[in-house]
This record gives sequence, structure tokens and C-alpha cells, in this order.
Amino acid sequence: MTTQASAPAYTPVREDRFSFGLWTVGWQGVDVFGGAVRPPLDPAEAVHRLSDLGAWGITFHDDDVIPFGASVQERLNHLAPFRKALADTGLVVPMVTTNLFSHAVFRDGGFTNNDRDVRRFAIAKVAENIDLAVELGATTFVAWGGREGAESGAAKDVRAALDRYKEAFDVLGSYVLEQGYDLRFALEPKPNEPRGDILLPTIGHALAFINELEHPELVGLNPEVGHEEMAGLNYAHGIAQALWHGKLFHIDLNGQHGPRFDQDLRFGAGNARGAFWTVDTVENGGYDGPRHFDFKPPRTEDMDGVWASAAGCMRNYLILREKSRAFRSDPAVQEALLAARLDELAHPTLGEGESLADLRAEAFDADAVAARGMAFEALDQLALDHLYGVR
Amino acid sequence: MTTQASAPAYTPVREDRFSFGLWTVGWQGVDVFGGAVRPPLDPAEAVHRLSDLGAWGITFHDDDVIPFGASVQERLNHLAPFRKALADTGLVVPMVTTNLFSHAVFRDGGFTNNDRDVRRFAIAKVAENIDLAVELGATTFVAWGGREGAESGAAKDVRAALDRYKEAFDVLGSYVLEQGYDLRFALEPKPNEPRGDILLPTIGHALAFINELEHPELVGLNPEVGHEEMAGLNYAHGIAQALWHGKLFHIDLNGQHGPRFDQDLRFGAGNARGAFWTVDTVENGGYDGPRHFDFKPPRTEDMDGVWASAAGCMRNYLILREKSRAFRSDPAVQEALLAARLDELAHPTLGEGESLADLRAEAFDADAVAARGMAFEALDQLALDHLYGVR
Amino acid sequence: MTTQASAPAYTPVREDRFSFGLWTVGWQGVDVFGGAVRPPLDPAEAVHRLSDLGAWGITFHDDDVIPFGASVQERLNHLAPFRKALADTGLVVPMVTTNLFSHAVFRDGGFTNNDRDVRRFAIAKVAENIDLAVELGATTFVAWGGREGAESGAAKDVRAALDRYKEAFDVLGSYVLEQGYDLRFALEPKPNEPRGDILLPTIGHALAFINELEHPELVGLNPEVGHEEMAGLNYAHGIAQALWHGKLFHIDLNGQHGPRFDQDLRFGAGNARGAFWTVDTVENGGYDGPRHFDFKPPRTEDMDGVWASAAGCMRNYLILREKSRAFRSDPAVQEALLAARLDELAHPTLGEGESLADLRAEAFDADAVAARGMAFEALDQLALDHLYGVR
Amino acid sequence: MTTQASAPAYTPVREDRFSFGLWTVGWQGVDVFGGAVRPPLDPAEAVHRLSDLGAWGITFHDDDVIPFGASVQERLNHLAPFRKALADTGLVVPMVTTNLFSHAVFRDGGFTNNDRDVRRFAIAKVAENIDLAVELGATTFVAWGGREGAESGAAKDVRAALDRYKEAFDVLGSYVLEQGYDLRFALEPKPNEPRGDILLPTIGHALAFINELEHPELVGLNPEVGHEEMAGLNYAHGIAQALWHGKLFHIDLNGQHGPRFDQDLRFGAGNARGAFWTVDTVENGGYDGPRHFDFKPPRTEDMDGVWASAAGCMRNYLILREKSRAFRSDPAVQEALLAARLDELAHPTLGEGESLADLRAEAFDADAVAARGMAFEALDQLALDHLYGVR
Repeated sequence: MTTQASAPAYTPVREDRFSFGLWTVGWQGVDVFGGAVRPPLDPAEAVHRLSDLGAWGITFHDDDVIPFGASVQERLNHLAPFRKALADTGLVVPMVTTNLFSHAVFRDGGFTNNDRDVRRFAIAKVAENIDLAVELGATTFVAWGGREGAESGAAKDVRAALDRYKEAFDVLGSYVLEQGYDLRFALEPKPNEPRGDILLPTIGHALAFINELEHPELVGLNPEVGHEEMAGLNYAHGIAQALWHGKLFHIDLNGQHGPRFDQDLRFGAGNARGAFWTVDTVENGGYDGPRHFDFKPPRTEDMDGVWASAAGCMRNYLILREKSRAFRSDPAVQEALLAARLDELAHPTLGEGESLADLRAEAFDADAVAARGMAFEALDQLALDHLYGVR
Repeated sequence: MTTQASAPAYTPVREDRFSFGLWTVGWQGVDVFGGAVRPPLDPAEAVHRLSDLGAWGITFHDDDVIPFGASVQERLNHLAPFRKALADTGLVVPMVTTNLFSHAVFRDGGFTNNDRDVRRFAIAKVAENIDLAVELGATTFVAWGGREGAESGAAKDVRAALDRYKEAFDVLGSYVLEQGYDLRFALEPKPNEPRGDILLPTIGHALAFINELEHPELVGLNPEVGHEEMAGLNYAHGIAQALWHGKLFHIDLNGQHGPRFDQDLRFGAGNARGAFWTVDTVENGGYDGPRHFDFKPPRTEDMDGVWASAAGCMRNYLILREKSRAFRSDPAVQEALLAARLDELAHPTLGEGESLADLRAEAFDADAVAARGMAFEALDQLALDHLYGVR
Repeated sequence: MTTQASAPAYTPVREDRFSFGLWTVGWQGVDVFGGAVRPPLDPAEAVHRLSDLGAWGITFHDDDVIPFGASVQERLNHLAPFRKALADTGLVVPMVTTNLFSHAVFRDGGFTNNDRDVRRFAIAKVAENIDLAVELGATTFVAWGGREGAESGAAKDVRAALDRYKEAFDVLGSYVLEQGYDLRFALEPKPNEPRGDILLPTIGHALAFINELEHPELVGLNPEVGHEEMAGLNYAHGIAQALWHGKLFHIDLNGQHGPRFDQDLRFGAGNARGAFWTVDTVENGGYDGPRHFDFKPPRTEDMDGVWASAAGCMRNYLILREKSRAFRSDPAVQEALLAARLDELAHPTLGEGESLADLRAEAFDADAVAARGMAFEALDQLALDHLYGVR
Repeated sequence: MTTQASAPAYTPVREDRFSFGLWTVGWQGVDVFGGAVRPPLDPAEAVHRLSDLGAWGITFHDDDVIPFGASVQERLNHLAPFRKALADTGLVVPMVTTNLFSHAVFRDGGFTNNDRDVRRFAIAKVAENIDLAVELGATTFVAWGGREGAESGAAKDVRAALDRYKEAFDVLGSYVLEQGYDLRFALEPKPNEPRGDILLPTIGHALAFINELEHPELVGLNPEVGHEEMAGLNYAHGIAQALWHGKLFHIDLNGQHGPRFDQDLRFGAGNARGAFWTVDTVENGGYDGPRHFDFKPPRTEDMDGVWASAAGCMRNYLILREKSRAFRSDPAVQEALLAARLDELAHPTLGEGESLADLRAEAFDADAVAARGMAFEALDQLALDHLYGVR
């Protein structure tokens, strides 16, 4: 199978439902060790440029578009050109999120800040932003609690903090229901950075938390590739479990090289093998939300590099999507999957009507079974052949 | 406060409820790179030695006491001296677990093995062992799925594997209920090793999984210090969340130095600061199960070193328990906790009868609040003073 | 450029100089958590099978071929069929290494063991093996000090241990010179596992150590992909530095997923992007030694899987070698390298005859320079296009 | 031994030679995810406050005191109050360093930037700063190449970059010699952050690099606790190797929790056990330079918290120094060290006049030696008892 013939398929179209955070292409490069390397990016320009590149949606934190503490009139002024750009391009706003981590008041977080005044403000700020999100047509509201956490043991009573975390989502969930909003929350886990340890550090912790909420049906996940890989976890496994629980509401695609600082590389440019299985799981696992990129164009780049990087995210997704399709439809792969007994895994362990007693009465020839290999290496080499484009 | 006067308190007594896995002191030192360095340890001798050291309980995998595939008579023969030692010493068996990872048949795991025959055998093996556990008085049944996982993406359909995982616990949970056994399951998460990626890799993933079971009330967690720290996660935070969900059924105490191979150091000899907060959380968080050690005496040691290492686990726990008590009762600490506003965190964010609308109508002086520091460094220095024993 | 036409190129030939450790395909699957899953592999059979697959060389630890403690006659008996297989197939033995880590006497290492008797034995064992290595035609002698290290701080005086480490290589270096052997040593760094911390943990530490030896010209490195990646380090960068020092004597190719246990995946099946840059550096950086694989066929596999895995190592190298060539000869890449100013990096910073004073007198327009992007994202996307085989 | 009596010893005095970077207490809290939380700190005030706390020295980057691009007159204006504060307090400036990473021109680094103009400017900037350093009495010049590195493989030709790196130190070394300055360079390695991979990533790589310089005697290391621990490496082992090479010129003390973002916690508040061995190695290994803290007071803190955090660094060092002394002078420890055969490690492996042939002729009773344990666990428990202050 040649990949060349389908190369035009690597040009994104609206139907691919690619969306970007405004803060991604708009990142000016400020980090702990240095200042801005790029000028501020006008939100309206971002809309136009992303639209030109073939994106379908744009997302934002309230403070990305409207400065923190803006008056009602200032809000309208800031929103007007952004709205016009959306209208002019047809770009949608599928998701909105709230910044509860940049301003100094959020030094100890928002919903779980020890300071009750800040918690109250945080809930109000999110409520305000929910109204805006709904007005702009968003149906997903992402909550990344980046500053909810601690650097030292006594600073945070984790159980009390989880009570407060739950309280916030219970209050906001009730609000969404009362207003009749068509909006769901998506929690974004992260293990650390900027806090020493962050609450709800992985997909699993967030899934478990949701079960304790008053309105669990309103809340799911927005897992980010790099955040799970920072904990050395397999992202494709993580979103597969989230799908199993019916909770993969949104995804953040990017790249990372294992446990280290949050790199936010463009999608496909981190763990390449992981990216293949990520796309394979997203495409074949029942997920139907946006393909959202949350990356940071490296500080080495000027604005040309920013757009090259954004284009690369989508291109790599499309390349990998094609590879996943080719892999799944390859007869040699299907044969290898049978040799690896994936069909048996899909089959319940107990037969229809069979009891544990039946099972226990059964003989088991340990020596014979011990000799059976799983044939995983041959199967995985086929996957690599597809990844490397040589099959 | 001097620590010297209370030094005798570092000698363990039965009331401390320390227990050890038979496989810990019995580890002969076989690893990927080398063979046995110590002779086999007779289970009965292990019981006597642990009893002499002040332990309260001993735990085991079926295969630790009874060779894989033993006949009924061989089983009885192997169990007899072990039972006698328990009777002679008064040591209890609070927990039992099943080995679904050592024998070659488990090369792809037990409950989620692609090979249906192996899954059937695994369930039967566990059921057999549950009967033994109950007979010996155990009330907790640990399930570590060390080989449930994969090295490559196509080898495991994670959602199908979770279906099979659930099926196994549903079948076994029903069995426990039918038999009227006083026994609960405790899942032990681990991110990787010996598999490239293991299913249910963290406390969070396992907590979430439990919610999908037919009998979630029967299933909780047995988190291990090192397993969470291998993912760079904060163990004290993890067990605090497990406690918040009411799911901390058992604990595995040991030591680790962050993301690397599973070190299984003696408790207190890895992340010392983390060990302090672990004990603080265990003692003050409502956990009332055994203090169970799952460590490996380093391969450098002979049997004297093994017992020194086991004694060190208990000693370190007692040292840290005393420190935790001193920390919590120190008036300077109580003052520092107030300065860090821990009292506010315990207080609901919304007042009695207050609505979200009330909250949103409230003014917020961002500049004033932004100037407030959290005073966490002063608080944590008090904790370090206690850890280092200089206060 | 299509990759399909050149597919036959992925079949290894002798000229590719692929070699394998006997212990790789011979690994029976024993790890900390389980026993053997595969039968012992006869060394002579390994020679034949590897030869059939297209390999050029085989390497071994003394104990892989000759049981620890064998008598002279036993040695000869064990070597005879191995030698015959080499002769029959034409496979060469380019490298030999000594096992100073499996037997219980090496519980604290060999050359740096606190026990002087063990150190003496270790040096003698290596000397014995050097004679064998030379007799078999090997020109590289790898030294992996897997048990040289510690789990706790007082157990090893690092400076004294480095004195002993140096002493061993000084003694053995003198021996090689005295004998007139055509043999060089290659140190293999590793950060941890099986020891908590291993001495000479990275490429850098080993390079620095060599400079203190009596015969530094005799000693270079044998870096392993996974070992560097276990420390989160970039393997291609590491071997590039080793090449810069003229010290890349041998390489161990395999796969790993960042900081965790030593996975020893087949080459190409870990960090795929890293594997591409590894091959690019090996092929273009002046290295002319064997392409040696040090991997472990996963425990899930039977012997068919073992050979599939071994074949995959070579296939992936050849795939990536072709990609590297295509990347370097692609005109768009050459243009992108200029845009990224790689040509300037190759150019000395000071001009011919220019002084620091000249430099300091020069004006610098910070604003103008600050606006220049590096164009790295566009360049890297070309690399990814080649990696993914779509260009 | 009680620790209480010596508590006053935890108050730092000048003789302890504690120094702080101006950028540590002066960090305003800007990170990738948020803006300043604290006001700018006047350098003169920093001098006074640190002096009051008992520090001995202060260090700085050029840009910490003098804004980037300042004119000669502005330089003098900025320096005047700083010099006055030094004179008023008696605080010394033992070390100075250059900022080659914050300004946008350094987006691809300084000495190894692909852009030759930037490299030229970087060398000139450092030369300028060397003059200032010497004028202020500094004898150590730290070079942290934080932006020397890459995010992608083709962006940096590592061998060419090392040529440029060497060129810069050769030029600057010659300058120092020509000027007759009493100044030595200290390289500060770091594995990653802010670049994806940084050149000279560990102590080892930097030590090896020094050997290739024209004036290696002028160049040593400034290893930072957290930087080595970000690679999972043992800091005490690292500085022990640097001492072995005679290259530990300066140290950066702080705290970190393994592979993750650069936490820069106050000293003693990361890996506590590691901090103990760090102090033990610093105090007993022949290092006689400043005890320099390079930490970041967490963003949660106001200025009171900043000073509490700075005071904590010194306090923890003094606590651990006392523990190290107590440990080394404890008769039980000395006995345990003998049991662990540390005396044998200090003893050459070959006897006076002994040859390799003698050694090879010697019999070795493997079974007898294999039975000898190393007694490391008992030794380490004594160390923990000292760390925990219960002995």
C-alpha cells in the first residue's frame, strides 16, 4: 500500500473537527527562565489564521480574550472582533475553559484554595464564564485545576480539599441544570507542574472523583497526552479506560518525552509510537468529540514557526489516522490479531450459564499452556511497519 | 521535646499490627540479572522470626506456601508446619493473595490474559485460595495484577480487558457473598514492571474501576508506596483520596526513589519526607487496617541482613508515628496551620443557605487578596524540624 | 520517494554488521516476579539461527557459554560446538564481555565490591575471559558494571570505589598491552537497576572516568539506548558527545519508554523518534563498529517470537537507515537546515585572526536579532514526514 | 546524643559561608502558567536581609542587577546601592554568573546558538561580566547553559555545538589568563528544561567536556541538587565523582522530587535522605567552597515566606551537618562500617608488588564468599536513626 496517493488527505478540512486553544498559538514564550519572544496575538487574527489552515474550532480561557477584571463594557469590546472573526470564518467554539491559575490570587488554586474568599471568587468566575461559553455555542467546559495542589505535606488536607472540589462541581452542575444549558464539564488531570503535586493527578483519579459528585452524568474527562506521559503512563490505555467508563468528553493532543517538565510539543512530535496508538484509540474507540490540540510552539520559533507548528499538529494526526485505518484493514494484521488471541479476549471467560463451580472442576494442563507464546512481537512489528510507512 | 525518652516505643508490639508478606523476608534475591543469593526460607521459620521481632501478622501468596500444582495431600503437608507455627506464636494471617504472575502460564496475565483457558484457570486458582484465606482467618484478599498489561499497542484491547477484569471480580465477589465469607478484596495498582504498562496503573484507575463492579462494596484498594512513586505520584495524597472514597482496605509500605525499577526498599529508607506524610495520613486519616510491609531485603544481605531490614521497617514506622503525633500536638504547628488557613479549607465555600447568585453578586478585591501569602514554607519547616528530630 | 521499491533492502546482509548478544535470544524470561518461560537455548543453535536471519556477529558473557566455575576440560567441551557453529556459519565474535553480576559472590559488584577477595576474583575472571575473547577474534571487550553501586549512602565510599575501578582497568589495560592484544575496552554506563544507584551512571560519567586511567586510549564506551533513556537523556545526543571525544567504541541498540525498569525492547519498538536520530547519528557521525543489539524478547513470546523479535531489530535498523539517507539527501531538508542556520553552527564564532577585543567592540542589535525565529518546527516536520514514510 | 542542646548551632554565622543567588529570593513567581505574585526585590534590600539572616555571600546574574542593554552610566547607577549594601553589611560576592537565557535573543542559547551573531554577543556579554565579577571580588564564574540544547533532532548538530561550546571557554579562559584574573569557571549541568534536551546534561558530561578544553585547569563544576535528581541520579554520588576528579568548584543546593519539572525547593525540603548524604559528602569530601543555595521560594509565599524559606535552607544545612558529624563519630557506625567492609574498599585490590599473574593463580572459594552478606541494611538503619534524630 502506498501512502503517496493519499497525501492530499493530510490537508485538514472542517469535517476533521480540529480545534486549537487560543493560548497555544498565542503563547508568547514566557517561562520560568525567560520573557516573551513573540508579540501578542490578536484573537481575531488567530481565528482567521487557524481557519486558513483548515481548523474547525477555537477554544479559550476567559482571560485569553477578556483581561482579568474587565468591566462589562470592556468585555463586550474585547469580544466583538473575536465574534466577528468567528462569524466571518465559520470557526466554532466547541469548548471554553476558565483561567484559575495565572493571577496571583490563585497562588494556591481556585476551587481548593485554602483561602475561602478565593474559592468563592473562583466559583463565581467560572459561572460567569459558563454563561459566555453557552452563549458562544460551546458544549464542553474544561476544568484544569493546575494550581490545586501543594508543595508540602501539611499545606493541604487532601480530603478536605476534595470536599471543596466536589462542592464546586456540585454547585456549578446544579447551575447548568437549572439554566437548562447544554453543557458538560471535562476535568483535565495533571500530576504536577506548576504545583509540586496536583490533586486528581491522572485520568484514574479524576474518573474516581466524578463518581462522588451530585451530577456525575454532567462530568467527564479531557485527558492530555503529555500530562499522562509525565507520570510515565500510557495515554492510549488511559483514554481507553475513560471510554470504558463512558467519560471521554474531550481530548488534548500534544507531545511529550516522558517524566520531565510539561513540554507541550506539537502532536506527533513526542512519543511517536504512542501517538499512533492514541489516534487508533480515538478513531476506533467510540470517541466523537473534537480533536483538540493543546501544545506550545517552541520558544525558538517566530510567528511563521507558530503556524508551521500548528499545521504540523493536524498533518500528523491525519497521517496517523491513515496509518491506523491501513493497519486495521491489513489482512496480515487481522491474522496476527487472531494469532495473539485478541478474539478470545473479547469472549467472556465463563460460558453462557457456566458457574464458578464448573470452572473449578475443570482440568488445566499447565505444561501445555505454558508452552504457548502470545505472538505479540510479530503483531507489533506489523504495527511498526505501518507506523514507519513501509507496508 | 526529646525523642530519647520514648525510644523504647520503637520496639514493636502486637498492638501495632505490623504484618509482613512471607515473600518479603523469603525473597532469595533472584532478579533479571542474577540468581539466588540466599537459601529458601521455611515458612514456619519465617513465622517464628517475625513473631520474635514483634510482628503481629504474616501474609502470603498461595505459591509461597504451597508449590504450584500441588495435590490435595501435598497442600496439607505444606500447610501443617505453617499452621503450627501460627498457633505456637499467635501470629495471625490478616491477608492472603494469589500468585497470578510467576508461572509461565501467566506470561500475559491472569484475569485479562488473551488466552481464555488461562483466565479460567486464574479464576479457579483464586477461588481455591479464597477458601484457604478464609479458613486461615484472613479478612482481606489482595489482588495484584502484575502481568495484566502489555508491551505493545495491539497486544491488548484495553476495553475488552477491563470487561474481563470486571467479570473476574464479579464472579469472585458473588462467590464470597454466596459463601457468606467475611472477606473483602483489595486491588493493588502498579504502573509498570514486569509489564511495559500494567492495567489499573494507579490508585485512581483502580478506584474508578471498582465503581463498575457488581459488588463495589466488596472491593477496595491495597496501594503500595513504591508503586505510586514509580509514577512520580504522591503516595500520601493517593491514600488520602482512597480514604475519601472509603476504599483504603489495606496498605503496602516500603521505599522507592522515584521513577525507576521497583526497588521495594524497607519502609523509611526511600523517600523519607514522603514516609512521614504517609504515616501521618495512615494514623490520622481513619485507616484501621494492618500496617503491612511489602519490601525486598536487598540482594547484598545474608539472612542476618534480612531480619535487620525487616526490623528496620517496623522501627521506622514507629519513629515516624511518634513524629507525626508530636507534629500534630505542637502548639506552634497548630498556629502555623491557622496561618496557612487550613481551618478555612475545612469550611464549606458557600455558607448555609447561600446561593451561587449570592456569590456572584459579591465584590472581590483582587489586589488585596493577591497580596496574601499562604505561609506554607514556615509550616513545612516545622514539619521538617519534627522529621529531623530537632524540635 | 516511495519506500516500497526498496523493501528488499530491509533484509539484513553480513555487510550490515549486525550482531547480537547470546544472552538476548537466550533469555529464558526469569525476572523478579517469575521463572523461566522458555527452554535453554543451545549456543550453537543461536549461532545458526542468527546466521540464517542475516546477522554478522554474536557476542557473549563468559557464563553464557561456559558455566561459572567450569574446569578447563569443561570449558573446552562447552566451547567446541560453539566454535564449530561459528566456523560453519561464518559468524564472527566481534565482542566479548564478562559476567560480574549474576553469581551471588557479585552481590556488591566486581571491581568495586567492598570485599577485596571478590575484587581480586573479578579481575582474574576478566583476564581469563580476555584471553578467550582474543582467541575468538574479538577486538572489543565490554564492561558493564551492573552491580557496582549501592542502595544506601554509607555502603559505598564513591571516591574509594572509583580508585578501585581505575585500578582494575589499569591492571587489565597493562595486561592487554603486555600481551600485545588487539583489544579495546568499552564501558557500558547505566544509572540504576539492579543496584539502587550504579557507578558511572551515564555516558558522561564514563567518559570523564576514562580520562583518569593509565591507558585512556584503550578505553571507550558501549552506550545502550535504554540505559540513557532510563535517565531521561537523549541517546543520540549522548553518542554524539562520545563521538566528539573519539570514544564511541561499540553500541547497544534496543528500546525503552523513559524512566522505568530496564525494558530492553527490540530496537525501534521503544522511542521511535529517538531511534531515527540514533540511526542518523550512528550512520553519519563517524562510527564504524558493529550494530549490536542488546534486547530481551518479551516474556510473552515463545521461541518463534524470540526470532521474530530478533529479526525485527535488524529490520527496523534498516528501515531507519534508509529514512536517514532519504532525509539527508532531500533538497527541502537541506534548505530547511540552512533556514535553521546549521551552517552557521559549523562555522567558528570568532573569525580568522579575530580577538575577543574585536568581538566586544562590535555593536549588537538585540531587537533585530530577537525577532529572528529559528525555523526548527518546519525542519522537524520534514524529519517526521520521513519517519512516518509520507515524503 | 541529644540534639536539643546544640539547637543554637542551627543559627547560621558568616563562618558557615552560606551564599544565595539574588535571583532566588528575588524571584517574583513568573512561570509558564502565571504572572508575578511578589513585587520586585531591590538588590540592596536583598543584601541586607540575607545578611540579617546570617548569610555570608550573595551571587547574581548580570541582568539581576543591571537591566539587559544598560548603558555604562546606567550600570554604575544600578551598581552603586548594591555595592553600598555589600560594604555596609560585609556580605561578599564569591560568585557571579551571566544570563544567557532570558532575553529573546537567546531563544536557541548563547555559546551554541545556531545564530553566529548571538554566539558572538554571548561571548562579549560574558567577558563584560567577568570584568565585573573580578572587580567585585568573585573567584568563581558559573556558566549554566540553560538554553543550549534542542527540542528536535535536526535542530542541533551536537558535535558542531560542542566545538562552539569549547571555543567559547577557550576564548574566555585565555582572557582570564591574559588578565591575570583569579577566577575559575564552574559549569552547571542540567538535563532538560527549558530546552527539551540540554547539552552537557549531567555532572559526567560536563566533566568529560572539560578535558577537551585548552585550559582545563580553569574549569570545574557547579552541580545543582535538583538538576541531577531530575535525571534520577544520586547527587551525592555525582559530587563525589566531581571531587575525585578535583573538579567540584562550587555547589548549588536545593530540593527536588525526582524526574519532573525543576522544583528548586528550599534545601532539605526535597529528597531528605539525599540531602543528608549530600551534606555528608560536602563536609567530608574535601570541598571548601561556598555553600550556595539556588532555590525558588514557592509562588504561594509572600515576602515573609520568602525569608522563611531562605532561612530554612541554612537551618536545614546546619541540622544535617550536625547529623553527619554525629553519624561519623558514632562508635556503632564505625563498627558497622567495618562489618560492611568499607576499610577493605579503601585498600588496593592488588598487594604491593603483586602481579595479575599472582592474582590469577590464586584459588577462590566461590561458595564460601557467596555466603557473606554485606551488612548494609544494619549500617543504613544507623544512618536513618541519625537522620530521624533518634540516636
